Formats: sequence, C-alpha cells, structure tokens
Amino acid sequence: MLGFGSDNHSAIHPELMQAIQKCNVEHAPSYGTDEQTELANSAFKKLFGPQTKTYFVFNGTACNVLALKSMMKTHESVLCSTVSHLNMDECGAPEFFAGKLLTLPHTHGKISLETLKSALIRKGDQHYSQPRVVSLTQPTELGTCYSLAEIKAIVDWAHSENLFVHIDGARLANAVHYLKTTFKEMTTDLGVDIVSFGGTKNGLMMGEAILVLNPNLANDLKYIRKQAAQLPSKTRFIAAQFNTYLSTELYKKISAHSCDKAERLHSKLKDISGVELTAPRQSNAVFVKIPQPWIKILRENFFFYVWDETTFECRLMTTWDTTENQIDAFTDLVQSLALK
Amino acid sequence: MLGFGSDNHSAIHPELMQAIQKCNVEHAPSYGTDEQTELANSAFKKLFGPQTKTYFVFNGTACNVLALKSMMKTHESVLCSTVSHLNMDECGAPEFFAGKLLTLPHTHGKISLETLKSALIRKGDQHYSQPRVVSLTQPTELGTCYSLAEIKAIVDWAHSENLFVHIDGARLANAVHYLKTTFKEMTTDLGVDIVSFGGTKNGLMMGEAILVLNPNLANDLKYIRKQAAQLPSKTRFIAAQFNTYLSTELYKKISAHSCDKAERLHSKLKDISGVELTAPRQSNAVFVKIPQPWIKILRENFFFYVWDETTFECRLMTTWDTTENQIDAFTDLVQSLALK
Amino acid sequence: MLGFGSDNHSAIHPELMQAIQKCNVEHAPSYGTDEQTELANSAFKKLFGPQTKTYFVFNGTACNVLALKSMMKTHESVLCSTVSHLNMDECGAPEFFAGKLLTLPHTHGKISLETLKSALIRKGDQHYSQPRVVSLTQPTELGTCYSLAEIKAIVDWAHSENLFVHIDGARLANAVHYLKTTFKEMTTDLGVDIVSFGGTKNGLMMGEAILVLNPNLANDLKYIRKQAAQLPSKTRFIAAQFNTYLSTELYKKISAHSCDKAERLHSKLKDISGVELTAPRQSNAVFVKIPQPWIKILRENFFFYVWDETTFECRLMTTWDTTENQIDAFTDLVQSLALK
Amino acid sequence: MLGFGSDNHSAIHPELMQAIQKCNVEHAPSYGTDEQTELANSAFKKLFGPQTKTYFVFNGTACNVLALKSMMKTHESVLCSTVSHLNMDECGAPEFFAGKLLTLPHTHGKISLETLKSALIRKGDQHYSQPRVVSLTQPTELGTCYSLAEIKAIVDWAHSENLFVHIDGARLANAVHYLKTTFKEMTTDLGVDIVSFGGTKNGLMMGEAILVLNPNLANDLKYIRKQAAQLPSKTRFIAAQFNTYLSTELYKKISAHSCDKAERLHSKLKDISGVELTAPRQSNAVFVKIPQPWIKILRENFFFYVWDETTFECRLMTTWDTTENQIDAFTDLVQSLALK
Repeated sequence: MLGFGSDNHSAIHPELMQAIQKCNVEHAPSYGTDEQTELANSAFKKLFGPQTKTYFVFNGTACNVLALKSMMKTHESVLCSTVSHLNMDECGAPEFFAGKLLTLPHTHGKISLETLKSALIRKGDQHYSQPRVVSLTQPTELGTCYSLAEIKAIVDWAHSENLFVHIDGARLANAVHYLKTTFKEMTTDLGVDIVSFGGTKNGLMMGEAILVLNPNLANDLKYIRKQAAQLPSKTRFIAAQFNTYLSTELYKKISAHSCDKAERLHSKLKDISGVELTAPRQSNAVFVKIPQPWIKILRENFFFYVWDETTFECRLMTTWDTTENQIDAFTDLVQSLALK
Repeated sequence: MLGFGSDNHSAIHPELMQAIQKCNVEHAPSYGTDEQTELANSAFKKLFGPQTKTYFVFNGTACNVLALKSMMKTHESVLCSTVSHLNMDECGAPEFFAGKLLTLPHTHGKISLETLKSALIRKGDQHYSQPRVVSLTQPTELGTCYSLAEIKAIVDWAHSENLFVHIDGARLANAVHYLKTTFKEMTTDLGVDIVSFGGTKNGLMMGEAILVLNPNLANDLKYIRKQAAQLPSKTRFIAAQFNTYLSTELYKKISAHSCDKAERLHSKLKDISGVELTAPRQSNAVFVKIPQPWIKILRENFFFYVWDETTFECRLMTTWDTTENQIDAFTDLVQSLALK
Repeated sequence: MLGFGSDNHSAIHPELMQAIQKCNVEHAPSYGTDEQTELANSAFKKLFGPQTKTYFVFNGTACNVLALKSMMKTHESVLCSTVSHLNMDECGAPEFFAGKLLTLPHTHGKISLETLKSALIRKGDQHYSQPRVVSLTQPTELGTCYSLAEIKAIVDWAHSENLFVHIDGARLANAVHYLKTTFKEMTTDLGVDIVSFGGTKNGLMMGEAILVLNPNLANDLKYIRKQAAQLPSKTRFIAAQFNTYLSTELYKKISAHSCDKAERLHSKLKDISGVELTAPRQSNAVFVKIPQPWIKILRENFFFYVWDETTFECRLMTTWDTTENQIDAFTDLVQSLALK
Repeated sequence: MLGFGSDNHSAIHPELMQAIQKCNVEHAPSYGTDEQTELANSAFKKLFGPQTKTYFVFNGTACNVLALKSMMKTHESVLCSTVSHLNMDECGAPEFFAGKLLTLPHTHGKISLETLKSALIRKGDQHYSQPRVVSLTQPTELGTCYSLAEIKAIVDWAHSENLFVHIDGARLANAVHYLKTTFKEMTTDLGVDIVSFGGTKNGLMMGEAILVLNPNLANDLKYIRKQAAQLPSKTRFIAAQFNTYLSTELYKKISAHSCDKAERLHSKLKDISGVELTAPRQSNAVFVKIPQPWIKILRENFFFYVWDETTFECRLMTTWDTTENQIDAFTDLVQSLALK
C-alpha cells in the first residue's frame, strides 16, 4: 500500500538500489577509506563548495546531534523551535550528546530573527547555559521554507554574536527545489556553518551526511562519530547511494517529483469544503484539518498521521513513489465524504 | 582484490542482497513495526528461545554499549579483558554510554574465572565503581572460544555475585560452528543475560541485534536505543537480512565456510619454517608471527593487518567469500619467501 | 552592608557557627561515618518520618540534580516550570546529570495540575522522552507556596501515572512556617518521594540534604553522590550544622524571622504610590515593580536584584539577619522617592 | 582519638577556624565576587605566578575531574597510574565528567617517562581514544615525590606530543617541603598546565582549588564548574581559609609538621624487627607491612587503613595535629608486639 505517512515508509529508489548492487563486488577497505566514499565526498564538494568536509552517519538523529556536539560544550545550549525534531522526536538525544535546548516560538515552523534576538539573555552569566548554536530546520517540520534572505539575516546576526548556525536538512533537496536555488547558494554562500544532509527520507535505504562548511570550525568529528557508535564499517554501501543521488542529479528528480505531487494534493484539497489547509505548501508536506469522522475512513485506505490529536490537523507526506492516481483517489474520497 | 584484512571488507552475501531487493516494494511502516522485523524477531526466538527480545541497531559498537547501558548505571563498571574490543577499539564509547571498564588480563583473549573472582574487590565501597557486568567476547578478539563449561562456570559465579553476563558476539555463529553446538545451548541455556549478535561481519550489509535473554531483566531498550541514535527508520532492510541469515540457516553455511578456510590457512602455515602460529585456531582468524621483511611483500598481494607492531604478529581473517585458491596462493607465496 | 540581594549573602547564623566550632576537636571518621552525621540523620528521621534516608551534598544544584538522577534514566524527563531554578539557573546541570526538562507555564511560580495533565503526551512513544518526575519548588522561585491540598492532588495524580514527585526545598522551612504545618505533613504524609532540603539559604555555611522519603524507591544514591563529586570528606562540619538547625528548632526561629521581615517589607511597600507588588507574599521574598529611576538610588544603599530587566520587577529577599531598622530605612527611602 | 587513618580525619587547623569566624560578619556577595576570594586569588598568583587563574570547588574529586574536563573532550583519554586516585577511588567520576582513563604501571606510585612513551600508540586512529592529558599525583598515593627533573622531562615530552600535564596535588605542600622547593618552581616554571590544589587534607574544613597555569589554555571553567554543581555560593568561607593558609605561610608550618612526624614514625619503625617498610618516606605517609596478628591490636588504639588486604601492607598518615607522643606510643606498642 502506498500512503502519505512518511518519506521513511517508501522503498529504496531503483537507481539507488542499483548503485548498491553495482558496488557489491570483491573486498573494499572499511571505515570510509573506500573508493565510493571518495567519490561521494567529491560530489558533496562539487555541490557545497571545495572546503566541505563530509561525515556519513546512519540516521537523522545522529546527524543532528553529532553536528551539534562538534560545535558546542555540554554547558552550552542550542536555540531551536519548540516544534523542532530536536525537541520533539529525539527522546532526549540532543541533551545526552550535546547540551541544553532553548526552545523558541515559531510561525509555521520558522523562528524569526526577532525571536532569536530576544532569547539571547544573560550573556556571561555562569548560572545560565550560554547559547552557542542556532538550529534551523529547512524545510521545517511544518513544510515551510526559510527564504535565502531570512537565512542570511539569521546567519549574519548569529556570527556577530559568536553563535554557529546549523541546518537540519533531512529533506534539504526539497527546499532547494521550492526556492529554485542550489545547495551552495542556500547554505555555504550564506555562511551556514554545518548541515545535516538527509538521505533516508529522499529515497536512500539509509544514511545521512554531516557537512562541515565552515573551514575555521576546528572539530574532531571523526572521533566524535566513532565514540557515538556512528562510524559505518562497510561504508561503500552508504557512499555509493549518495554518490548516485548527487552526481546523477537524482536529487533534483526526486524532489521535483515529491514536491509536485504535494502541490497537486494541496491544490485539490483547497477546493473541498470542510477541509482546512493550515500551512503554506513549500515542500513535500501538506498540513490540513480534516473532520474527525472522515479520518478513520481515509486511513483505512491511505495511511497518514494525525499531527495534532486535539485539532485533527493531519500531515500528508509525498515521496518519490507517490503517484498521481494515488492522490486523485485520495482527494476523490475526501470529496465524496464532503458531499455526504 | 580479496585479502585477509577483515570480515568487514567483504561484500554482501548474494542471498542477503536478494533479501534486500525482495522487500524493496511499496511502503512499509518504519521504526520496527514492519513485517520483516516481525519475521526476524520470530527467527531469533526460534534460535535463542521464546523469551528473546530483539533490538536492531546499526553497528557493533552500538550493539555492545547499548546492551551494557541497559544493565548498568553510570557509576558501575564492566569486567572485560584488556584486549576486548570494548577497551581497545571503541574510542571511549563504553565510558560515554555505559560506565567504567575494569580491564583484566587474559589468555589468548579469554578471561579465566579466577581472574574475574580476584577482580571483585571493595564491594559496597562508595569510592569504588562497583562491577555490574561481565563482558565476554565469543569468539574472542584472538579467535579463541570459551567452552560451554567455561561460560557456564562464569555465568553461575556472576549471578551468585549479582552480576550480569554480556556476550559480545560479533562473530557468534563461528563459535557455534567451532563448538558444534547451537546458539541456544551456548547462551540462553547457560543463563547468559544479553548478547550482542553480529551481522555485519557475517555477510550482511550492516546491522546487529541486541538480544535480551534474561526475562527478568527490566530494561528500557527501546528508549535507550532511540536516544542513542540507533533506531533505524527503514527497518525492513536490516530485518530482511537477519531473517534470511537465520531462517534459511545461511549462518551455518557462512560460518562453516569461513572457519574451514581459516583451518586450511592455519594448517598450511603450520608447516612453513620461519612462521610461528601464536594462538589456537578456533574461528575465522589465524594469528601468526611472520618475519618482518616478508610482510611488505605479502601485503602487496593480500591485504592483512599487523596485529602487534613490536612482535610482527599478524592477523589473517577469512570470510564467506574467501576462496581456496586465495589461500593457496598466499601460502605458496609465504612458502617461497621461506625458501629464499 | 545588609541588603536584600539573596539569602546566600548572609553570614553563618551564630548558633550554627558554634556548632561547627564545638565539633572541631580530635579526629573523626570521614565520609559520613561520624557521630554528627548520625545525629543529623536522626534529626531528619524525627522530622520527616522514620523511613527517611539522608544524603548530604555541598550545594543546591547538586541536591536537585542528584535527587533527579536517582529517580530517572537519561532518556526520561522532568516536568517543571519554565521559571524553575532547574531550568533557569543551573547552566544545564539537570540535562548533564539527569535528563531532559519539559518546561511548563506557571502562575506566580506554581504549576497547576491541569497544566501537568496536559503535558503528559505520547506515552510509550519511543521518539518522545518520557516524563518520569514532577519537580515542584516549595516555596517557588516567586515566593509563593503550594497548599497541602495542591501538593496532595499533584502527588496522587503523579503516582497514578507512574511519576515520582520531587520537591526543590532550598527554603523549605519558610513554606512550613507560612502554611503553619510541619515538614512531615507537607511532604512525607502527602506521598512526596524525594526532597532537596536546603541549608545554605537558611543560615548554614553550606550544605544541603537529599531526603529520600519513598521507602520503595530503590536508589544508589551513595554511589551517585560519590561519582558526582558530592561526597564531603569532613562530613561532621556539615552534619553538625544540620543537627543544630533541626534539633534545637532553630529552623523555626530563622524562618519566622525572615518571613516576618518580608511581611513587614511587603505591607509597608503596599501603601507607597508608584510601586506595584507583583506576587502574593508567602515566604521571605517580596516581588515588586519599582520605577526605573528609583532603582539606582535604592541600590546604592541596599543591594537587591532586578528580576526582570524589561519590566523592572525587583526581588527583595529577607534573611535571618534582616533587621527592622533596615526595612524601615529602605521603605522610608522608597517613600521619599515617591514624594519627590 | 588521634590515629593515622587519613588527613581527612583531622580537625580544622585553629588558624583556619579563626579565618572563618573573622569573615563571618554582615553580607557578602556570593559566587566568587567577594573580597576574600579576591585575596585568595592574589595569594595564588603570588605563589604560582601572575597568570594563575583560580577556581574553588568543594572537594578533591571535583578538583581533579573538572581540571581534566577543561582540557579534553569525551572521546579523549588521560594517562595515569593504575594506583591513581582517579582510577581507584573516584567511583567512575573521571569517566563520567571527562573521558577514558588509560592506566599505566608505576613504581611506588610514580609513572616513568618510558612507560608514558610506550603508551602513546595508534595516533590519529579514530577507533582508539586519543590521549590528551598526563595526570601525575604529587606526592603520589604511595607517598613518593617526582623530582623536579622528572616532572620537567615528562612535561617537555608531553608538550612535544600535544598533551597537557595535570598535577593532582591533594597534598601538594608536602611535596614542596620534601623537595625543598617552591610551588612555582615545581609547577609553573616546569610548564605544568593545570594543578588540583588541595585544602581539605591540609587542615582546611573543606575546599580545593583548580589552578590554571597555562595562559594559552582556552577554557570555560566557570561554566564547567557551575554545570558540575561545584560553584560554592558563600565563597568567602572557603576563600578565607585559603587566603590564610597561603598568605601567612601556614602551609609551610603544616607540611613541615606532618612530614617531620612521618619521618619520626618511619625511622622508628625501621628498626623494629618483623615490620617491613615498603616505600621511601617522601611526604606524610608511611607504608609498612605489619604482621597480621599485630594489626588488630594496633587498630584498637590507633586507627589506620590496611592498604593491601593480601599482603597486610598498611598506610599510616600523619597530619597537622599528629603529636610526638602519639607516634612514640604507637611505635612502643609495635615494639612490644615484636618482642613477644
């Protein structure tokens, strides 16, 4: 069954599956010294700039918390939104690996510069965990995107305050697609210090990459990663996927597909009376309030999550394998419920 | 090139590759709620007993340190050998996740019961980190195996002292093969509390399983795993490999193959003058001192590690894809060097 | 100079100083095996009930975070108010030692049962750090007190949800005074599980006590304390102070004095136009908005903290050595500024 | 009763008690902003050099582990002796706060430069926790002292290898006395980076000081200390003791007294047949094997610790209040047992 549950539910994209099979020959050195890793590193340098240092890890939680750990000490803190994955869905991993979270209010998942500024209090006060990192999610957990100007303003301010900027980019390619920009223009060129670059939610079997963009960032990521149990041994199988994803521009194809499908879903739902779209559609997510009695019926045919159990706001995610038929079948069903 | 470097260097076994491809269809629920995970869990129950609880993680470091974390508190400690992977090759991961290591002398990688007994000092002394877990590696880092009687004696003593017993079983199937026993007879039936069950070094792409055998062991492993960034999202691809590895008895085929090849290597090296075998051959490892000038020449053709830089003891590992030709070519080359 | 800055600013109460001197003879066993510790333990048992287990530590931060650590695991979380000392003034110590904080809105420092109930979401969801402890401050950071009925209702609900209840009692005696109750009636009898019992802010040189009240609470506090570097060696000097503070009922004298002085301050300020009292007076703190231009003049004579830099709400603390003259001189000065 | 148990058993030196009383007047700012702290800081600068930065903490465990934490990351390790307090008596605190311990063999508590050199293996290997700090105890746990030349050689080598040098100086003044040197000549002038300076075992009620000597050492000790729950609030009472201890040269008086008494004890025991002195006497400790049947009788009159339960090596500590009579009574009793 294909549903709208999560981009984690979809299969491995056939071209990525092929990449895995293709490198499944003979022996290869382990722990990142193989040829595939070298190729993938080059692909990242090409897309994010030549100073990019790449560290593969297994999943998104690790990618975020180890990026943070490389920039801060345990007595420091991270400015992030109350709705951030870091705060809501990591079971305390950021606090365990990195440090305290200072959670901030948001609008459709985005933190404003003003909110960040007002959170920077008690500088130098030893009793108060000092902020060291701003963490932005792009696209956000609510499917919205920071504009390049917004990112630039936040980075400039952060650096003037001696803070680092981290981007949680589990679906980064989708933001690049929506903003009609490039990875480099959206991150490196704006001064972003470190990026969690997602693979798993974009058609890979598994694998994420910590991208260190700030060349002045002294870090011990290879040791941090190993101690955190995130050093893959048979690295070639993760690296081969990333190499294909990036160097064949598969990332463009996948993000265009899933974003277009989300747009179709969004625009068809817009016209149905009884449903209420609750956030702008800027990536592969559609947030929508659906009357409670409909939800049960819909979920029998298409799995998706109720995002807010009190308001019945639902989250519909599209992926590389979402089909037009699937969307039309879903919206037809919603339409038929609306007409009852 | 095929070498004797590590069982991490080998490719994915074709039957396991096929298992991945076969389940790469449609959507599947994530985070361990899929059908493949259910099948793999059943396969583990069948082999280790019905009370077995299985938790997949990404790699061996995680498998060991989270197993430990589930049994101890930060102020407690682990009794393990000085040569254990925990002590030598985890970059401080056990200390970061679990607690202190109390390292003990060993014979060919094995800790004796007497050594363990003499390490249990200062009971109840608040200044002294109290041992809570005995960690045995089976087969050991030096390729030897504890006999069933040895494990039994250690477990019985450990339980009488209120200690848990953990087995680091990165290559557990090889010990089962050598001892002509079963998983259950070697672990559950002897009272072992928890096992780190290896996949990556046995032909899988990646994936290890924490097996909780002690039904009285209250643990929070699902939260511990998530907080430690070790909860795979697209679990089906790890689970499918384990399911095939276990339920088709592929594990027997792979361990028989790699152990037999190691035996061939061992017995052929035994008769070559100038080389000195340094440990009994009881799994897929051969430890051997080779004259320094030969090593460079040998490594040009067959990669392997010098285990001890001062004595030139080398470690030769065989895997599921080691061939007889490869062994014969290697031993022929050694023989030719011996004759010069 | 005597001011209204903090109960940390005041000297050691003369009777406590005497207690220190009196036991400063000969040798005494260290690490809690001395006679004074035994006496202090008995005094706590007398006041909190015979099952009370007492662990001395050096300061309030330690007292709170080690109490928490004894009840929870790193993947669990604490429900506390946004304004709690835990959240605002411990530089990330709770996250480092214990786990995540889930911060909740409050009224004058108090969390309502309804707020707590609504925070208990996603039970059993491995992605979400599971609440394990409710931490109440009594009296709160804003000088208010939970009534016995309020504590009872929260404890009963917490226990029904498998949560523990911790009381941060840095100034616990002041709440006992205000509520005209006893330590036992306010804690043990209501089912409170653990208390951080303050000494330093109540006239001691230094020293706090973790009181474990729940006899079913299996804990390793002696090891937790030692590993956390909080085991005092010359324990007699801390214990002697607590013994005198409790067994001579000095705690009643000190809390009555400081609360009465706060009441005098509060009632005199109430009638001065231009100042605005911002919270009920229920302990030794008075919170009051003072016109900004007055603050500088007042602080030249009487040190105190501006609690909120944006609203000019100030915090005035009284202590065992606050005098009536001091209060009258302060309020006279405020009055004279009001008349200008 | 006066015994030879520990310098932790003795009372507060009268001059230090007086220092506490003298500053017990009026209010003083807390958390290290008081006059006494300023005076003590100056006293440390005078004795260790003008670049010295001083951080008071409560006890020796904290002093050691926070000094380490300020110099290393969790994935790094400390080279120290197997018999170090860090390894044997801190209940895993170094691992919890700082990182892994790499324990080394010793001679009478001292680690040789050769031993250190041979421990520096696998540089740059991500699987191996990289050494960052050498920790020496001066005087050692076995009462011996590193010579200035030995310290110099270790520091020079350590710095050439990019390692920091920490001195655990719980009884540092006694080494200064034995070596007839000064604090500065023994530490700062040799390039030592950080010192744990002991107070509690030298006549203070409690209190230790982390001394940062290396001006290039970027550290966040004020936040590290606060997060670790080691920031004293009523700092004046710790600072006043250190100020008196240092600026009146009381430290010389106390160390001379206790070392002289140890020497008397050592030389009198030397001549008694049946007892065997097991280490050179170079501070206030005497290590001696005493026939088991005598120990019980001796301990009825003079408390002391059996250091090694298997060999009956005992540790006899002298302190500022050890008297000649006490020593003579003890050695007379030993003598009488020898004559039986």
